[in-house]
Amino acid sequence: MTAPVFAASELAQRFGLELQGDDRPVRGVGTLSGATAEQLGFLANPRYRGQLAATAAGVVVLRPDDADARDGTALLARDPYAAFAKIAALFERKPARMAGIHPTVVVDPSAYVDLSAHVGPHVAIGARSRIATGAIIGPGCIIGEDCEVGDGCELVARATLVTRVRLGKRVLVHPGAVLGADGFGIAMDHGHWTKVPQLGGVVVGDDCEIGANTTIDRGALGDTVLEQDVRLDNQIQVGHNVRIGAHTAMAGCSAVAGSATIGRHCLVGGGAGILGHLEICDRVVITAMSLVTHSIREPGEYSSGTPLMDNRSWRKSAARYKQLDDIARRTRTGDKDQE
Amino acid sequence: MTAPVFAASELAQRFGLELQGDDRPVRGVGTLSGATAEQLGFLANPRYRGQLAATAAGVVVLRPDDADARDGTALLARDPYAAFAKIAALFERKPARMAGIHPTVVVDPSAYVDLSAHVGPHVAIGARSRIATGAIIGPGCIIGEDCEVGDGCELVARATLVTRVRLGKRVLVHPGAVLGADGFGIAMDHGHWTKVPQLGGVVVGDDCEIGANTTIDRGALGDTVLEQDVRLDNQIQVGHNVRIGAHTAMAGCSAVAGSATIGRHCLVGGGAGILGHLEICDRVVITAMSLVTHSIREPGEYSSGTPLMDNRSWRKSAARYKQLDDIARRTRTGDKDQE
Amino acid sequence: MTAPVFAASELAQRFGLELQGDDRPVRGVGTLSGATAEQLGFLANPRYRGQLAATAAGVVVLRPDDADARDGTALLARDPYAAFAKIAALFERKPARMAGIHPTVVVDPSAYVDLSAHVGPHVAIGARSRIATGAIIGPGCIIGEDCEVGDGCELVARATLVTRVRLGKRVLVHPGAVLGADGFGIAMDHGHWTKVPQLGGVVVGDDCEIGANTTIDRGALGDTVLEQDVRLDNQIQVGHNVRIGAHTAMAGCSAVAGSATIGRHCLVGGGAGILGHLEICDRVVITAMSLVTHSIREPGEYSSGTPLMDNRSWRKSAARYKQLDDIARRTRTGDKDQE
Repeated sequence: MTAPVFAASELAQRFGLELQGDDRPVRGVGTLSGATAEQLGFLANPRYRGQLAATAAGVVVLRPDDADARDGTALLARDPYAAFAKIAALFERKPARMAGIHPTVVVDPSAYVDLSAHVGPHVAIGARSRIATGAIIGPGCIIGEDCEVGDGCELVARATLVTRVRLGKRVLVHPGAVLGADGFGIAMDHGHWTKVPQLGGVVVGDDCEIGANTTIDRGALGDTVLEQDVRLDNQIQVGHNVRIGAHTAMAGCSAVAGSATIGRHCLVGGGAGILGHLEICDRVVITAMSLVTHSIREPGEYSSGTPLMDNRSWRKSAARYKQLDDIARRTRTGDKDQE
Repeated sequence: MTAPVFAASELAQRFGLELQGDDRPVRGVGTLSGATAEQLGFLANPRYRGQLAATAAGVVVLRPDDADARDGTALLARDPYAAFAKIAALFERKPARMAGIHPTVVVDPSAYVDLSAHVGPHVAIGARSRIATGAIIGPGCIIGEDCEVGDGCELVARATLVTRVRLGKRVLVHPGAVLGADGFGIAMDHGHWTKVPQLGGVVVGDDCEIGANTTIDRGALGDTVLEQDVRLDNQIQVGHNVRIGAHTAMAGCSAVAGSATIGRHCLVGGGAGILGHLEICDRVVITAMSLVTHSIREPGEYSSGTPLMDNRSWRKSAARYKQLDDIARRTRTGDKDQE
Repeated sequence: MTAPVFAASELAQRFGLELQGDDRPVRGVGTLSGATAEQLGFLANPRYRGQLAATAAGVVVLRPDDADARDGTALLARDPYAAFAKIAALFERKPARMAGIHPTVVVDPSAYVDLSAHVGPHVAIGARSRIATGAIIGPGCIIGEDCEVGDGCELVARATLVTRVRLGKRVLVHPGAVLGADGFGIAMDHGHWTKVPQLGGVVVGDDCEIGANTTIDRGALGDTVLEQDVRLDNQIQVGHNVRIGAHTAMAGCSAVAGSATIGRHCLVGGGAGILGHLEICDRVVITAMSLVTHSIREPGEYSSGTPLMDNRSWRKSAARYKQLDDIARRTRTGDKDQE
């Protein structure tokens, strides 16, 4: 297989970028510190600006503001990271997945698999489930009853759709993800837990991505919903009846408890938690490992937690945290005494 | 398949509730905001009391205290959520699982599978393991050596029992859960880690529920133990030799480090952490994302962390947290000066 | 199968320990509180010193400093836990895994599986992947394209190597682990997320251990790297292009965001988080549930968070945390007034 080649000028034209310097062939992509003279690098995060002078990259994608600092060929982009993403995609070699169902697959007679779909080894597809045009169901996936996998979806491997999970188009699900398991509904009844039946499903909009080992429970009544273009990283937990707005992205290990509603274009940091039955409006940013304990009605950035300290200093602050109400009262008293 | 119908009066009698208003047929359940005139809704969380006036639900289960606020038919319950759970179960349609072993299943000759058990596709059952009466082993489950699956257990799909895992009766295990993996036992020896063999197992009591992608390690010496009716949500980590008391419930993403003991009837909030070798007594509540760093000997509610703030204000508080010992000393000095 | 027996004197000689008291046969290992007269216990954690007087263990491994407190036979070790680990390994009975490929396994014609390897049921091995001498691939594992599993590796069960994952020698991977899934690379482009291709792989050094349901994403450009002897507990998330130094151990539910670099011989506590693009030097300890928000250049112990409190007291401190800048200013004012 020959690696593809593109002229820098060709990339400029295709993606609406401005070429600065001599035209050059590009045979691949790399980081500023690792790219060769035949590769294209990018500068998006200012943290790496110092690497610009020394880079061996033949072409660099960067902001017009950074263009002066670049000696060789450059492609100027308002958003270098997005431009780089599209260029890099030209060099990605994805394994071909032929249409057809592997002989080891077990399909319920009432299920439907489109002829154009690819279903890999050791897959099971349950009653009344439907796999649409061009979908890829990788090895070891389990699809339960009453599920729908839309056109062009890809379940990479070993993903599980438990029951009543409906994926839109081009949804990408990574290994170990579990969609549609029972929500955590339990009611204490005379000293013993009674299980609350989870009668709803999960609805995932077009172009969503679900990370490895992420779990999305099905609704108790009604559905758990991800609107279109929601991006979930790995190991995220989404409780029953949660609704996540379009274009919201959540980083690894974050979690949303049952019946919370998250708006559109939100960013949830890694390890952050959102309590149940809350509402978060559009364009909210939650920083890493913060806990959202009340609804948020104004766009903006929100945080909780304390800064990292050396353990010895931290112990002192932590001990004082316990006395914080007293400390505050003493300053009040002081104020009053001085009045 | 015809949907079931129950008269409100029939539900009242069956579950010991008081009927208020006209008798009506109930053909399903829903939320207050979504239920139709043929469905039953419920009011348990006071947060939703405002929806009572406008609900279209034909019947509402609620507390006697809320009865005055309800115009139409109501069923009065001391605990509306538990009553609702039992009523909703009447309307749950679970897929039938026929007894028998799917032809793709690989069973070790020394294993035993009861004739009444259902074993789905792509399952493997290892040496000396036993699957008891009426158990359901869903597709893709892996059961290793020396495991026991008790009467009426259900492993929904793709669950793994690694080795020496013994489930009581009616244990429900969700997809992706891993029980009986090696505990994290390592000892530093001349600059290189030495693995500490994990010779114990996992014992899970009757009526426990284990969430999707939850992990419970087997003991190093002796067993990791869940007593009866323990309810674990998704993505929980339980370390080796932990003991969790009966009727304790843990929410998603919480974690318990090795050799900790948790009492009975405890509630552990989402994302909370419990350090190793601690003891927590009965009836303790840990709020979400708190870290338990010492044993707890008194029932009650415990917390750590800081409140959610807008990021700008939070940065100020966080910076001051580092100076907290100095701040406290200054207030003391002030006190002394004023003495 | 007969259980093995070793004389205490034999263990002393084999592992370079000092025998104190009479020689005795040892037929197994246990905890101080559970071991019998034919078993060996150990005292490493001072928390359990109180159990020494009452133990029924025939032999106890302990530090020379603790020797006086032991009446019966003892083995003196500078590091009792490491000594115990090696002794316990003598009593571990691991299931034999015969060389060969189970008939249910699906192997791509371009893949290579060494004749000495064991490949269990329901495994799939993708194009151009290689399984080396003596490797064990347990039931339900999925190995994608272009992966390498080194000599003596063990994938216990249901582990997934997605693509371009190269394991060194003797790497142990627990069930549910996912290595080599797409890193979380997305770029906002005109209101819609564009996926950044993840063109790199994952490189795991010799003697690493990867816990159950842990995820390690492959690099965007270049590789995600674990150096040798890195030990990861369960449910850990490692982002793309992270590098973790040799002999570093991370406890359950911790997480490292993309492009962070962690040094050698570090210890990361349970649930701790490390933000992306940071550097942590060698021999750093991060305590449980701390968040690392900046690079760390000095060895030592680091922490964030607040102590556990009863909820009522905590509410007061938490409310005051919001006012912390004002409180601090008031003490300054006080100082100034008093100057």
